Amino acid sequence: MSKQIFIFDTTLRDGEQVPGCQLNIDEKVMIAKRLDELGVDIIEAGFPVSSPGDFKSVEAVSKVVQNATVCGLTRAVKNDIEVAAEALKHAKRPRIHTGIGSSDIHIKHKFNSNRDGILERAVDAVKYAKIFVEDVEFYAEDAGRADLEFLARLTEAVIKAGATVVNLPDTTGYLLPTVMYERISYLMNNVPNVDKAILSMHCHNDLGMATANTIAGVQAGARQVEVTINGIGERAGNTSLEEVAMTLKVHKELDCYTNIKSEMLYPLSKLVEDTMRMPVQSNKAIVGRNAFAHSSGIHQDGFLKNAENYEIMTPQSVGVDKSDIVLTARSGRHALRHRLAILGFNIAKNEADGIYNEFLELADRIKEVNDKDLVDLMKELVVEV
Amino acid sequence: MSKQIFIFDTTLRDGEQVPGCQLNIDEKVMIAKRLDELGVDIIEAGFPVSSPGDFKSVEAVSKVVQNATVCGLTRAVKNDIEVAAEALKHAKRPRIHTGIGSSDIHIKHKFNSNRDGILERAVDAVKYAKIFVEDVEFYAEDAGRADLEFLARLTEAVIKAGATVVNLPDTTGYLLPTVMYERISYLMNNVPNVDKAILSMHCHNDLGMATANTIAGVQAGARQVEVTINGIGERAGNTSLEEVAMTLKVHKELDCYTNIKSEMLYPLSKLVEDTMRMPVQSNKAIVGRNAFAHSSGIHQDGFLKNAENYEIMTPQSVGVDKSDIVLTARSGRHALRHRLAILGFNIAKNEADGIYNEFLELADRIKEVNDKDLVDLMKELVVEV
Repeated sequence: MSKQIFIFDTTLRDGEQVPGCQLNIDEKVMIAKRLDELGVDIIEAGFPVSSPGDFKSVEAVSKVVQNATVCGLTRAVKNDIEVAAEALKHAKRPRIHTGIGSSDIHIKHKFNSNRDGILERAVDAVKYAKIFVEDVEFYAEDAGRADLEFLARLTEAVIKAGATVVNLPDTTGYLLPTVMYERISYLMNNVPNVDKAILSMHCHNDLGMATANTIAGVQAGARQVEVTINGIGERAGNTSLEEVAMTLKVHKELDCYTNIKSEMLYPLSKLVEDTMRMPVQSNKAIVGRNAFAHSSGIHQDGFLKNAENYEIMTPQSVGVDKSDIVLTARSGRHALRHRLAILGFNIAKNEADGIYNEFLELADRIKEVNDKDLVDLMKELVVEV
Repeated sequence: MSKQIFIFDTTLRDGEQVPGCQLNIDEKVMIAKRLDELGVDIIEAGFPVSSPGDFKSVEAVSKVVQNATVCGLTRAVKNDIEVAAEALKHAKRPRIHTGIGSSDIHIKHKFNSNRDGILERAVDAVKYAKIFVEDVEFYAEDAGRADLEFLARLTEAVIKAGATVVNLPDTTGYLLPTVMYERISYLMNNVPNVDKAILSMHCHNDLGMATANTIAGVQAGARQVEVTINGIGERAGNTSLEEVAMTLKVHKELDCYTNIKSEMLYPLSKLVEDTMRMPVQSNKAIVGRNAFAHSSGIHQDGFLKNAENYEIMTPQSVGVDKSDIVLTARSGRHALRHRLAILGFNIAKNEADGIYNEFLELADRIKEVNDKDLVDLMKELVVEV
């Protein structure tokens, strides 16, 4: 029986708090609507107590989202929770996300407390949030470095206090997938009431393994994944929504499904890239400009013989349009450059005129220039460089 | 006893074959020298038969590299091997990298052959290459989708024929780390002569898991990793050198070491980014502009209380200089913008004047402006947006 994995998008919270990525309320509302259409299950819209702007954004997003749960972040602090509840009051499905540090290093250096003190504050926060909303998610910050036995005790306690979801972040982006699998398995096997809540993965990408760690958590039994469009977020970013969604879609043996409409991924990636001013590199998985470009001679031959030789998913499945444009001698420089970019050719300015002239000669000769013709043209030109 | 993991860099071959990334010979020589200084064990310098330019590049790189092995790619074709041997003749430590498709889909659609036919061509190619050089690496293209029993037979046969390294590429970037671990473990346990050669990981990043797959292979017993600077390469790219090197360095429990001088990673990343015209996104692990920037209020506080709360490696360990610049009222706009960029603040043009004026007021008041002062200044400004 296929399991649903719930997609918790935090582009508007963990993504948006990167300096330079700030959005105004209208932009947040626009992106939230698109996330809702994409099929995201939960939208974390902001951290209401952090600023009046964030409060208003969470309020505005709460009013427009039709299907997804709308979530607001808080610390384990009464005032944070009250403010979040107020910001979320128009949401059809509100969720408060509260929590506190769980590793000894956080407990000692950040909270100047001890394990029992943290546990008490965690339980109090969840109970307080439950006064306002039914759906309360608890985050155990820096769970990746927390003592595992304590983490199990903390998880059990917050579930008993009413938490519907327990989020176990790898805050420093440190874990290996094998260790993540072991840790989540330990919680699945050692928290007596774990079946009363959902465990959630929230990974950071400092060593480049956020997606693999998230999938390892799912393999161990986690049912929610916290992700951002294009993997934006603090430092090296959060787990990429598009990578996790496509991994779950392509790897049918994992026996999981999500509600993501994958053909909306590429357009939404472009929207977030532009609106949040965070360029996506050409070699980014799934949504990079080159992600579906097949360029080398060896690969090109194999690809043209049989796309399945190299492709594990089609560009169309993530909304990249690869085939409906045919260029002609009337196509302009812009159309040519755009098409070449989709094919993975980044043209230097001083090369543009020469290439356009070559293209016009070709188009005059063969009338309709398709992607294969363009790749052949570029291969000829490239060899001469 | 700590195991050495050999770093095989293919920036100049698998990276360079991406259209738009082409380098001239002088640029390739410059990058090869820097890779040699970085401590890379093998430099794959090109595919000599593919073009006269590639031939000359491999020849030129062979002449200048002092420490690393220099490697040339070939198909399992006599002429390819002869041409590669000729290009490598000045190398102190030459290696020929030959191979052929190993999955049924490649065997049938690309080579119109069968398993026995492929095995024979593989053995012949290795034996032929051994006439010219002692160090012969064999690649089993699309090993990720190959029948595992056949792959074990093929691996055994090429080792018997003299292969020193057997490369098992995940050509389509499809595998999960758990499956990669199982497949490499199978080969380690079922190839009788596996101790006579080194198994090598060559992963692609189509689902965002190249680094995790490479590490999974190392955990199973592979001793060589094929990587590129910044993870450049076909489609979503190859495994990132910097991610693998730092994972092996940070995770001491893996009990592995490499010869990489990690403090050279960031400068070399910048060189490759500029020379190959492949911008690195801000949220790229290890070498992205934001990789070491701590920006949100919650994290900022924790970070300033104790850097270990959030950092698993220092920026200095990868060559990012975070602390030796102090700005003053005499610092120009460029210095300010540069420093802010290092701290992860991407300033829009229309905000630059206002921020510079605020900075000057602050610098007049406190004389020396350090990173913490700048972060505080930006936090004040950001909240007003």
